[in-house]
Amino acid sequence: MVVELDGLSAFPLTPLRDGAFDEASYAGLIERLASAGVDSITALGSTGSYMYLDREERRRVARAAATQAGDVPVMVGIGALRTSQVQRLADDAQEAGASAVLLAPVTYQALTVDEVYGLFEDVTAGLSVPLVVYDNPGTTHVTFTDDLYARIATLPHVASIKIPGVPSAPKDAAARVDSIRVRVPSTVTIGVSGDWFAATGLNAGCDAWYSVIGGTLPEPALAITRAAQSGDHAAATAESARLQPLWDLFAEYGSYRVTAAIAECLELVSSDCLPRPVQGLNPQGRVKVAEIIDRLGLRA
Amino acid sequence: MVVELDGLSAFPLTPLRDGAFDEASYAGLIERLASAGVDSITALGSTGSYMYLDREERRRVARAAATQAGDVPVMVGIGALRTSQVQRLADDAQEAGASAVLLAPVTYQALTVDEVYGLFEDVTAGLSVPLVVYDNPGTTHVTFTDDLYARIATLPHVASIKIPGVPSAPKDAAARVDSIRVRVPSTVTIGVSGDWFAATGLNAGCDAWYSVIGGTLPEPALAITRAAQSGDHAAATAESARLQPLWDLFAEYGSYRVTAAIAECLELVSSDCLPRPVQGLNPQGRVKVAEIIDRLGLRA
Repeated sequence: MVVELDGLSAFPLTPLRDGAFDEASYAGLIERLASAGVDSITALGSTGSYMYLDREERRRVARAAATQAGDVPVMVGIGALRTSQVQRLADDAQEAGASAVLLAPVTYQALTVDEVYGLFEDVTAGLSVPLVVYDNPGTTHVTFTDDLYARIATLPHVASIKIPGVPSAPKDAAARVDSIRVRVPSTVTIGVSGDWFAATGLNAGCDAWYSVIGGTLPEPALAITRAAQSGDHAAATAESARLQPLWDLFAEYGSYRVTAAIAECLELVSSDCLPRPVQGLNPQGRVKVAEIIDRLGLRA
Repeated sequence: MVVELDGLSAFPLTPLRDGAFDEASYAGLIERLASAGVDSITALGSTGSYMYLDREERRRVARAAATQAGDVPVMVGIGALRTSQVQRLADDAQEAGASAVLLAPVTYQALTVDEVYGLFEDVTAGLSVPLVVYDNPGTTHVTFTDDLYARIATLPHVASIKIPGVPSAPKDAAARVDSIRVRVPSTVTIGVSGDWFAATGLNAGCDAWYSVIGGTLPEPALAITRAAQSGDHAAATAESARLQPLWDLFAEYGSYRVTAAIAECLELVSSDCLPRPVQGLNPQGRVKVAEIIDRLGLRA
């Protein structure tokens, strides 16, 4: 299956139940995304807790996603601390039917620029599917420069870069996207992440939105994406503004814990679905989540 | 074997050869430490690349350390991203013969204070041996407060805290150590890390030095430790000052890569002994390392 690395890529949670992968709930999440019509599903992103799962769990998750997604292309996160582990996970993902893989340079010891490049070089050398470069400084503590984007973008199979946001002013956002675009091959797409940046990013010319909220609430994420794609920038901005209470929760508690609380509140997953030591939202946060879901009409 | 969590605890590398655990070289490193008379050996610390190794590799490393160390107590690092993984590693370490375990709150998603505490609570509940709290902000991105030290120090089995350094002025260092000591039970020892802080820390009343360099060059580390323990603060300070060129290399390249380059230079391990994507020191750095080893007479 050929994956187009544009439009809405939805990042589902990988729900646990009593500390183990909850495959039944996961199948429900994936079917929900496929029915909604997202452009791709990215299994085992940060929202999908990839770094907390062992190889066998990740293999099961990748297979479940590929099986349940039907015609929707599935990308699979393959990040790990050691290059040899990443290479094994890439093989597993491809065997499971992944249309593409997503790789963040996860660190324990800080990595030099050459070491980050070397990781992508070693991993892409053995790939058969496209790779999305996952720039996620909040979790990896790696700072990509545009030079590093440019170097990595010339490697075989590199097909997209997931950038961590754009400036909030539309003109500055467009300039930022353009400044990356001139540095990378024309075949490499640029996808925005940080959901609160999405409308601005798509309006500014990003090809894709790598979306946390889209993995649990695909409808509003699709509304933003389709508006921006049709050139109706105002509608994209308006829908994002309507969701501002969600972005405020993300800022306060982090998108990972809030999204899990939303899925728990909607009974899409069992309670306490995140891997310890990560704990779910505190009771006060959960009250706010429930309130905002109702206020914004997101129970559908 | 009862472990006294004081004196010099030496952190050996876990050398790889062609990407796999090099058990023969590791046995040599452990024997070298035992012969030198270090007070304990901490296998699978950050210097021992614990986060890059899988469960089976870590089991093999822990067993090899316990076997080769003879009468010297062995502590084993059990850090991992998920609580259930840490618990399994704790079981493995104890089965392998560990006298104590060392736990850093490793993160991918940032953890709240309550989540860090919860990790230590869950892990200590199942332990039979003492635990060293490993405060290593440079790799975990967790900032411990003194309140958090105090809360965790009351948990069962918590026997020592590895602090990330002390102020450089002797008076300020003593005040810092005292300020922690009054917050934790008297049975909990305080160990300094950051090798360039060690003489100051030990002179200031730290019970232990959790030492990177001591895992590869035990003699000078023992010279500092024994001087400080005997009350000869000036001798401890002088030996640390003599090693300043090493500390300068640590500051420039990081202690992890420099220590690996020292071990490679001394032919204690094979070349390229670190796990990819981490690469060894660049050629320029290696020249400096060799020069300084000779200048300081560290080839013995």
